[in-house]
Amino acid sequence: MDKNDIFETAALMADAARLRTMPLFRSAGLTPDNKLSDGFDPVTEADRESERAMRAILAERRPDDAILGEEFGMSDGSTGLTWVLDPIDGTRAFISGAPSWGTLIGLTDDAGPVYGIIDQPFTGERFEGGLGRARVLTAAGERPLGVRRGVGLAQATLLSTFPEIGTAEERAAFERVAAQVRLTRYGLDCYGYALLALGQVDLVIEAGLHAYDIVAPIAVVEAAGGIVTDWQGGPAHRGGRVIAAATRELHAEALEFLRGDRVADAPALD
Amino acid sequence: MDKNDIFETAALMADAARLRTMPLFRSAGLTPDNKLSDGFDPVTEADRESERAMRAILAERRPDDAILGEEFGMSDGSTGLTWVLDPIDGTRAFISGAPSWGTLIGLTDDAGPVYGIIDQPFTGERFEGGLGRARVLTAAGERPLGVRRGVGLAQATLLSTFPEIGTAEERAAFERVAAQVRLTRYGLDCYGYALLALGQVDLVIEAGLHAYDIVAPIAVVEAAGGIVTDWQGGPAHRGGRVIAAATRELHAEALEFLRGDRVADAPALD
Repeated sequence: MDKNDIFETAALMADAARLRTMPLFRSAGLTPDNKLSDGFDPVTEADRESERAMRAILAERRPDDAILGEEFGMSDGSTGLTWVLDPIDGTRAFISGAPSWGTLIGLTDDAGPVYGIIDQPFTGERFEGGLGRARVLTAAGERPLGVRRGVGLAQATLLSTFPEIGTAEERAAFERVAAQVRLTRYGLDCYGYALLALGQVDLVIEAGLHAYDIVAPIAVVEAAGGIVTDWQGGPAHRGGRVIAAATRELHAEALEFLRGDRVADAPALD
Repeated sequence: MDKNDIFETAALMADAARLRTMPLFRSAGLTPDNKLSDGFDPVTEADRESERAMRAILAERRPDDAILGEEFGMSDGSTGLTWVLDPIDGTRAFISGAPSWGTLIGLTDDAGPVYGIIDQPFTGERFEGGLGRARVLTAAGERPLGVRRGVGLAQATLLSTFPEIGTAEERAAFERVAAQVRLTRYGLDCYGYALLALGQVDLVIEAGLHAYDIVAPIAVVEAAGGIVTDWQGGPAHRGGRVIAAATRELHAEALEFLRGDRVADAPALD
């Protein structure tokens, strides 16, 4: 693998997406249903335009890699590498003006994620992990990523995008973990994985994800020293139910409650 | 009232708070319980240092105004004006690394809020409203604030800080409104009022607030053309249960569900 070519290609893709998402973010006239009166949906259009621009860069620079994108699906390749793209992850944050959405650019080989970018254009943060890199780039320079260590479940901060996570069964599982932690926060979308990689929070638990929602976050979190699996402890890069943790110890402890192997102790009787 | 002196004083206070909060935001070693191993709590200390710095500016420039601060309570004055200060609103966001906390600087006269700042140092946004101003200042310049008009309850975006809002009764009231809107988002703290003033969202509903949580947001939202009241439609600047809406029409519609005067229609029978 030509790492430098991968780095440069991914950076060009993130730059190209910024040019198409930022003019729309917080623009006047965006309504909550995303549609103007003639039925035109500018957010979906920005999503499509961004993915087209990223695919054009790949077509020129890396035509033999495969591509899986949120908007245009799968394009086959021959190198064993697949780019996994979500131009606007966190559409609901985007249309609310909240800076927790991001452009996700991931790269997998046959074994799983090898590299990824979570790009937040409004705050100007580009979180990058894999192939030897683990850093956030801003206008002020770069800063290394690294998870926070030594925090047990009872002291942990847990994030999830929605309180109404998944099915009733998935929600009950999530709430078994939430009942154990010190602080649970909602609404952070892909930015939650970036905060985990920055060492600011300890756990992210979600359900109902697609591959394009999670490949780039896995690469960033793992490069920062964290662990990401499904709720059974297996690979998470195909989506579905995901738990990301700062450390193996915390991951194991949270997984016990998530699976229901442990539940909260009943209050002692007087 | 010397408006320019108020503007300058408030800007100096917000600058002084930034110098004390930003070095701590996302600093290494902040743990979820806010306390280092020797029991020292750096977030509470940054809160106190910020309020001390803001009070020192008032002592020099406007010694006859009263002050109500989150950390040091009430100091009497003789001008009929009271500065209402919260150095770090959204402590839980702050300790999670999320940029939805803010420094709140409000000014009231006998009738209620007349001016306020919501300052978000990480994104570099200073939202300012009252005494003829309604704007957000960033490094890139200034932009006018203005609510979004023409959005009915069924199309609205609703924000609240926590899904576990208030008492069981308050939660049921909140959920009557949430069931009517297009999109509900959590976790935005005082930044939610800023997004309302920017025209990005339509409603913010909260409970259990203190005066220092809401005086500055009221000034900013009202300057942008919005309306903020308690859940009975009365003044909200003393805290408690608060509803902020982009327009009078939307406010009236949401209030009917919040009070329980209207509930969702039962599904039609076949």
